[in-house]
Amino acid sequence: MAKIESVVTDHYRVPLPVKLTDSMHGDMDDFELITVRITDTDGVQGMGYTYTVNAGGAAVAVMIDRYLSDVLVGADPERIEALWEKMWWHLHYAGRGGHQTSAISAIDVALWDLKGRRSGMPLWKLFGGYDPKVPVYAGGIDLQFSTERLLEQADGFLEQGFRAIKMKVGRANVREDVERVQRMREHLGDEFPLMADANMRWSADQAIAAARELRAFDLVWLEEPTIPDDLPGHARILRDGGIPVAGGENLHTLHEFRAAIDARAISYPEPDVSNCGGMTVFRKIAGLAEAHNLPVTSHGVHDLTVHCLAAAPNRAHMEAHGFSLEPYIAEPMPVVDGFVTAPDAPGHGIDLDFAALEPHRA
Amino acid sequence: MAKIESVVTDHYRVPLPVKLTDSMHGDMDDFELITVRITDTDGVQGMGYTYTVNAGGAAVAVMIDRYLSDVLVGADPERIEALWEKMWWHLHYAGRGGHQTSAISAIDVALWDLKGRRSGMPLWKLFGGYDPKVPVYAGGIDLQFSTERLLEQADGFLEQGFRAIKMKVGRANVREDVERVQRMREHLGDEFPLMADANMRWSADQAIAAARELRAFDLVWLEEPTIPDDLPGHARILRDGGIPVAGGENLHTLHEFRAAIDARAISYPEPDVSNCGGMTVFRKIAGLAEAHNLPVTSHGVHDLTVHCLAAAPNRAHMEAHGFSLEPYIAEPMPVVDGFVTAPDAPGHGIDLDFAALEPHRA
Repeated sequence: MAKIESVVTDHYRVPLPVKLTDSMHGDMDDFELITVRITDTDGVQGMGYTYTVNAGGAAVAVMIDRYLSDVLVGADPERIEALWEKMWWHLHYAGRGGHQTSAISAIDVALWDLKGRRSGMPLWKLFGGYDPKVPVYAGGIDLQFSTERLLEQADGFLEQGFRAIKMKVGRANVREDVERVQRMREHLGDEFPLMADANMRWSADQAIAAARELRAFDLVWLEEPTIPDDLPGHARILRDGGIPVAGGENLHTLHEFRAAIDARAISYPEPDVSNCGGMTVFRKIAGLAEAHNLPVTSHGVHDLTVHCLAAAPNRAHMEAHGFSLEPYIAEPMPVVDGFVTAPDAPGHGIDLDFAALEPHRA
Repeated sequence: MAKIESVVTDHYRVPLPVKLTDSMHGDMDDFELITVRITDTDGVQGMGYTYTVNAGGAAVAVMIDRYLSDVLVGADPERIEALWEKMWWHLHYAGRGGHQTSAISAIDVALWDLKGRRSGMPLWKLFGGYDPKVPVYAGGIDLQFSTERLLEQADGFLEQGFRAIKMKVGRANVREDVERVQRMREHLGDEFPLMADANMRWSADQAIAAARELRAFDLVWLEEPTIPDDLPGHARILRDGGIPVAGGENLHTLHEFRAAIDARAISYPEPDVSNCGGMTVFRKIAGLAEAHNLPVTSHGVHDLTVHCLAAAPNRAHMEAHGFSLEPYIAEPMPVVDGFVTAPDAPGHGIDLDFAALEPHRA
């Protein structure tokens, strides 16, 4: 039996090509990337990663390096569920979510990658194999763009092959949001899937008012209208606003998704495989959504997520996130007529260019 | 106006005099202590601390040192609520609780201490001043003690001045728990306040069965009968088990307490001032409990908590936690006939002996 021989963590601050802005995180010039490489005693290596917005990455790296790697080294890498439980309980006190889950997520992805590479199977097949072609949308982080630049960005997304787009809302004056959504709807045509993301900016009542104004523009969903802690508020927004609600990038456990779904708080659960507990938990959330007759969408790290959604019959559009790792990925997935295709290489099939990342070491 | 001049963090691994055991955290030989000292431009210093069980402390220290101190230095130390919000949003992505809240808690306590020292007022008075005498119970961490040693420990607590005791339950066989509780009840007499803590060991159905068995022994509360994520399970245990339920050491936000109380999941909210967001949040939880006609108890760091409970008209027994810092505190609070008295020194009045801690630096 192969055992885990080493766990290597690295922490980078990756610059963004253009400054991004949303309603609650402010300006973003870069993001923190935390990678983990797990090698077994047969010399097979799995790789995973997670990221943070603005801050916190060093704490995630410390959790892996100082606490979780001790749980892993010497263990059977095939028993991911057992390792997941051990990691969860090792950092449970003061953890139970938060950055702990990002640390576990990166490791979980590396373990699944290792399992895929050991078995020679791409993860989407290992996970059950629904359809490797996954519909994808471009997640614009564009709150401070002028309307002209917003429309130009949309044209760029269309050229890149996208056939669905999400835009930010949550400007100081909701009239501006409504106008911008209207301009985008006119620009893209009636049938084009368009989403809007408020990044927790509003109170429940503000969100209901905004949703009612936005209803005319036939959004696929309104995302994170208020803080994720306020499930009763979300339930009111969904019921009284009259637009489907997406949320989940800030929910960090299977239980938080269960609570959100039970509360009728979200129509589109949106786990981020890099902060919800990895592929192990993402797939349970997808199944939970299916059990509630709901679709499942995603947040962030699309190169990893594609395997989970390519295995989920209830998959909705996958987000192609603005924090792109494409400059550091050997063969990024092309977007063709609104779809990406999960790779057929063993594991997740992503080879990060660590040499190119080196100058960005944090 | 004074500004924050420096934020100094230290991280220790403090040995315990005896190995402690509970049902989910296993054996504990030590705990991690993270201290923070905030000095303002007038040279006044406030001190706060938090702790972790088994793991995670280095990540908390990194959060303070690398991310949160930047938010603090140069700011007005008197605007604690404003600083709290800034710290919350700075680490919100991938955080929103978990270790982030422990980091904020330590800082929040230091800021309140600083405010108290600047104004010459003890915190319990600054917080409103209900009654400095707070009933206290001894929190035994004794799951693997023999029954004889359990009763001896109880005698020791009585000699120390305690008039209320909590014991662990959650042994492999629930019959053993019932027997041990029965022996303790017989030993202590019918009127003696006795609590039991299962540390999340049971399923909801197991907990209901156990609670029904334990009902004969008139427990003040049954603590953490199942995982804190399962609020519907807690609500069933409380309703069908027929014993008051305490919980909260693993809830890390005001919102989590709101959800637990809304769900009728807990009778005794039990925030830990070192992981719920500090004194700022503890006091809001106490008020939330009061608004729901509930008492408020506590977990951990009693030397700090006493100020919050001495200001709360709905305070129940405060826990004197097994992770005692008494060897490192100049003047520990004596327990007199079941009560401790909040000190009248400015701030929280605790002076940690950093020289004595030095050999335990992690």
